[in-house]
Amino acid sequence: MIKVGIIGGTGYTGVELLRLLASHPKAEVAIITSRSEEGVYVADMYPNLRDYYKDLQFTSPNTEQLASCDVVFFATPHGVAHQMAGELLAAGTKIIDLSADFRIKDVDEWEKWYNQPHGAPDLVNEAVYGLPEVNREQIKSARLIAVPGCYPTATQLGFLPLLEHGIADTSQLIADCKSGVSGAGRSAKIGSLFCESTENMMAYSVAGHRHLPEIKQGLECIAQQPVNLTFVPHLTPMIRGIHASLYVRVKDHFTDLQALYESRFANEPFVDILPQGSHPQTRSVKGCNTCRIAIHRPQNGDLVVILSVIDNLVKGASGQAIQNMNILFGFEENLGLTNLALMP
Amino acid sequence: MIKVGIIGGTGYTGVELLRLLASHPKAEVAIITSRSEEGVYVADMYPNLRDYYKDLQFTSPNTEQLASCDVVFFATPHGVAHQMAGELLAAGTKIIDLSADFRIKDVDEWEKWYNQPHGAPDLVNEAVYGLPEVNREQIKSARLIAVPGCYPTATQLGFLPLLEHGIADTSQLIADCKSGVSGAGRSAKIGSLFCESTENMMAYSVAGHRHLPEIKQGLECIAQQPVNLTFVPHLTPMIRGIHASLYVRVKDHFTDLQALYESRFANEPFVDILPQGSHPQTRSVKGCNTCRIAIHRPQNGDLVVILSVIDNLVKGASGQAIQNMNILFGFEENLGLTNLALMP
Amino acid sequence: MIKVGIIGGTGYTGVELLRLLASHPKAEVAIITSRSEEGVYVADMYPNLRDYYKDLQFTSPNTEQLASCDVVFFATPHGVAHQMAGELLAAGTKIIDLSADFRIKDVDEWEKWYNQPHGAPDLVNEAVYGLPEVNREQIKSARLIAVPGCYPTATQLGFLPLLEHGIADTSQLIADCKSGVSGAGRSAKIGSLFCESTENMMAYSVAGHRHLPEIKQGLECIAQQPVNLTFVPHLTPMIRGIHASLYVRVKDHFTDLQALYESRFANEPFVDILPQGSHPQTRSVKGCNTCRIAIHRPQNGDLVVILSVIDNLVKGASGQAIQNMNILFGFEENLGLTNLALMP
Amino acid sequence: MIKVGIIGGTGYTGVELLRLLASHPKAEVAIITSRSEEGVYVADMYPNLRDYYKDLQFTSPNTEQLASCDVVFFATPHGVAHQMAGELLAAGTKIIDLSADFRIKDVDEWEKWYNQPHGAPDLVNEAVYGLPEVNREQIKSARLIAVPGCYPTATQLGFLPLLEHGIADTSQLIADCKSGVSGAGRSAKIGSLFCESTENMMAYSVAGHRHLPEIKQGLECIAQQPVNLTFVPHLTPMIRGIHASLYVRVKDHFTDLQALYESRFANEPFVDILPQGSHPQTRSVKGCNTCRIAIHRPQNGDLVVILSVIDNLVKGASGQAIQNMNILFGFEENLGLTNLALMP
Repeated sequence: MIKVGIIGGTGYTGVELLRLLASHPKAEVAIITSRSEEGVYVADMYPNLRDYYKDLQFTSPNTEQLASCDVVFFATPHGVAHQMAGELLAAGTKIIDLSADFRIKDVDEWEKWYNQPHGAPDLVNEAVYGLPEVNREQIKSARLIAVPGCYPTATQLGFLPLLEHGIADTSQLIADCKSGVSGAGRSAKIGSLFCESTENMMAYSVAGHRHLPEIKQGLECIAQQPVNLTFVPHLTPMIRGIHASLYVRVKDHFTDLQALYESRFANEPFVDILPQGSHPQTRSVKGCNTCRIAIHRPQNGDLVVILSVIDNLVKGASGQAIQNMNILFGFEENLGLTNLALMP
Repeated sequence: MIKVGIIGGTGYTGVELLRLLASHPKAEVAIITSRSEEGVYVADMYPNLRDYYKDLQFTSPNTEQLASCDVVFFATPHGVAHQMAGELLAAGTKIIDLSADFRIKDVDEWEKWYNQPHGAPDLVNEAVYGLPEVNREQIKSARLIAVPGCYPTATQLGFLPLLEHGIADTSQLIADCKSGVSGAGRSAKIGSLFCESTENMMAYSVAGHRHLPEIKQGLECIAQQPVNLTFVPHLTPMIRGIHASLYVRVKDHFTDLQALYESRFANEPFVDILPQGSHPQTRSVKGCNTCRIAIHRPQNGDLVVILSVIDNLVKGASGQAIQNMNILFGFEENLGLTNLALMP
Repeated sequence: MIKVGIIGGTGYTGVELLRLLASHPKAEVAIITSRSEEGVYVADMYPNLRDYYKDLQFTSPNTEQLASCDVVFFATPHGVAHQMAGELLAAGTKIIDLSADFRIKDVDEWEKWYNQPHGAPDLVNEAVYGLPEVNREQIKSARLIAVPGCYPTATQLGFLPLLEHGIADTSQLIADCKSGVSGAGRSAKIGSLFCESTENMMAYSVAGHRHLPEIKQGLECIAQQPVNLTFVPHLTPMIRGIHASLYVRVKDHFTDLQALYESRFANEPFVDILPQGSHPQTRSVKGCNTCRIAIHRPQNGDLVVILSVIDNLVKGASGQAIQNMNILFGFEENLGLTNLALMP
Repeated sequence: MIKVGIIGGTGYTGVELLRLLASHPKAEVAIITSRSEEGVYVADMYPNLRDYYKDLQFTSPNTEQLASCDVVFFATPHGVAHQMAGELLAAGTKIIDLSADFRIKDVDEWEKWYNQPHGAPDLVNEAVYGLPEVNREQIKSARLIAVPGCYPTATQLGFLPLLEHGIADTSQLIADCKSGVSGAGRSAKIGSLFCESTENMMAYSVAGHRHLPEIKQGLECIAQQPVNLTFVPHLTPMIRGIHASLYVRVKDHFTDLQALYESRFANEPFVDILPQGSHPQTRSVKGCNTCRIAIHRPQNGDLVVILSVIDNLVKGASGQAIQNMNILFGFEENLGLTNLALMP
């Protein structure tokens, strides 16, 4: 049984870590921190937790206490992990960061998009990008893992086989992505109000979203060449779910794409290639760690349409973080992650 | 490991049984039947099941095969179980019926509300009403269990301590209940369409709902006296959840109701009494088997307001069915039912 | 054509006034104020207004300018109108206040519930409670109108004929009310977030809601005797709508309640009594000024169930405010209020 | 005052015609037909209509009676209008067909996609495609108007200026479209149930949707050259709204696209070009006839992203039908269509 600490546990990724870890047979949450909610019971904020965490309280973050944990998750907004990571690593704790602080290798690029100086540029290089389907080996021996964002996870897994196989025309990739509202977090913003976001569909940040450089970096790393990506996120009136609709021209007309995808992900516990002709539903992954993918080639043309869905809070955040933890500690990769999606 | 059969598995209670049993360490689904979907894979109907039940297919119901199961769940509309139960019981199988066929002890009353002759009136008396908080002992030795309906579960648990304690004015009980749309099942009815039920609230069946006689019978059994009940169900634009708002005048002004409820349910694994002043949220039980209850006495008057919430598909149907199965087979009562609610 | 001013127009009742007044043939919006949004175009905040109000901007409130209006609407939170009303009335402008400032005749009671000293106690008495179905004559000659709240409107219209007719047992009235989320306004509160309020049903403020004294006062005024009211509001996952489920024991078993209600409201342009056995849907009044009511007497008992629905932003706020304006200025009562509900 | 007949008025486009025509000063509904609902009051099916159409009943379709109307709307599924149109035209009535029967000029193509022989191929050529922004002059003198589909309207208006101006690379147009559930109509299908479509996002008919040939024909007609279109529709959990996200490479880097769009639609009453950098919301057109468009060129590249939103039941069906009627009868184009969108 390993000891887990969670920093910044009041947000949706924090409560999702608690929900998933409650059924994990080899990990237990020892500490959960929140400056603003110090002393509050987690179950008072999220009453679903009463059935397991009746006595767990938020505490103020304390490095010494946290250092007693085998692993610490950062479920904070960006800007926190890069300031605390160094000290915790020095104390021998492993770090799994759900925020964006260590995802982008180019520190200048990071500082531009996140609008602040980076507090630990030296650690950026060491950090392993925690997409197990790409970096499983590096994750095993990592000290510091940067868990991918939600859009980046759905998009990279969707493009992956085409890019690895070298048949994608990388001069123009399009990712038209639809996200549930929980992607905006639990902060009190007008735009996230029920009355502002239900019965509505809209694109946002078309001029440039913070996940753009992360996705681009990931795709280029997979493709081993520059890619040109247009990324358009949309806000969808549902709590959870990312639906990525990916458009890419293939250079080779004869590859059996269905077979290519099935073979690439055959041994992946959390990637499910749907039968030919399928349309994945975001609700089919609601609350579970699976990414479901379908491949289409309308009118048998050269433009391929990949549909890729995940739960943004699970495979797009907390579930993937636990998957990384399992790999890191040599557990079976699906421990604590076997629950089926809630449907309906 | 016991063998489970499910009859009529295409509806929402059927898929919910499959979801919950997937994590049950001592039960496995051997057979699932559906006349209309014979040969279809359950995962083609409910893609969330792909992560566990990739090979399970619907079969046509066959008594001989079903008799090989240790227990058979009826997840059918009313009118099926009363025709098949006798033969299965004779073959030695235990039956847990999620439909209404064996809930009402007065066969004439049942025939009036369900508008058909009852095919096994002799079994009605033997059937145990599967509300563990009331009938745990009888459940242990039952052959045939009638799982309570969703409204009846939330309402009976809410009124229970007041009625047992004899301080409720039973001449006028009011249950104003709000249900999610999944209570209407998975049949293609205009009234259950998204465009007909979202962004809308309405009462229905105010003149008389089929759950009325069931609730009344249960309350009278608990109170050991006649009760007068007004039951008004409402359709609420959400998938899951029952919110029962119960109104009852208490005859004794001095009882500490909070203490009464906490003490009555102290050892119940699936009833959670919230702290004084709380307002239970249906989402706090979304996907889990807990019933959460809060007790209010506005302006310190004699009219008590009890708020009781459950997930209609879990504690109101499939979860409670599995709880009954656990009791019946001497398992720990919460096996397969430990998952936390999905929130948000 | 009269000139209209709107104070505090950034909230949902403000934009609803703009929407409805855009089709009013005898009124035009001259001024709309907001301290925080001074200089902002209303259409930038609510893009639906681009089709009519492309050039209207928020200005800082200025009494002299406002005094040039024939009527000023307060679409502010409580606490603003009681401070500004005196000066505006002195300047000869009529006031229609959508907030709670002048609804409650007992100033001490108001100060207790609203937690502040009242700035114009002398005006409280003069203010006319703007429920046209009760106070049409007084409205005609009013200077200051207090528009009823949303819950109070649905509840009072529902109980009205029984109370006037003297057959209600006033010792125990119950109002179990369900409101859409727009009732909470457009402020950035966690509880109003999409992810916190969708797929959820909950009661709130059971111990005491600010609309309780307003409803009680109104009912007692109609009944001409004290009433005992239990009022339980619930938050429902929809944008608009109030569904009031009212429970009352009648003292006379023989009155034809359907006929009583139909006759009482026969000449009311905005109250629609549904045929016997109906269940009004909140969506049937979405965006329109109608209150629809159905009367039930389950099992032909003495407990009567009244179902009453309105759109909280229209008949429960801005539409009723315009209805008051029409009466006040001698216009046809339904000017600007003839649009049908949006369904689906 | 012209007399209007509506054939097949039980669906969502039928009730929407009734809602909009209720406020039309120069048209009145004389006849509404439905074989299955003969004798039923329209207000019993859609209670929002009680406020205007209390006495209107569905009748069985009768050509003689219909011929007494100045104009007949077909609000039927495809396959009805092509069988009845000839007789009605011969009787001198104008026809505005909201179904797909006369939209596609190539009869073989139509028969392939709609899977039936066309009953009036001779009329296909005469029919005018009722997109006023393209065909206003022909509409004025038409006898038979084919109202465009919802996806085709949003998509064609979005691409229009680029295609007319000749700067679009027509070798690869992509339309990633999101539709509310009302687009699927009011028929009792499992896929349209609340529990199946809420909290979910999914693509459908990626292999080929019936609107594909209609859009392609329209775009080619505008561009005066062949176009290559990939069209991917998605089902979105909301009642109303189409959000079209359009991707197209422009051949000329220097054109001011914002100015091009503003100038092209300057005199169009129902097309609204948003300011640079905007993201149109579907709710901003909920219930109104406006199409709102924003133009983006991410990272100043050659791939242009056009965002175009309409209400599928208004500008995508019934509102556009009335707009056509207004043009046809020489009325002001916006009669009956001036209501603002309902927001929130």
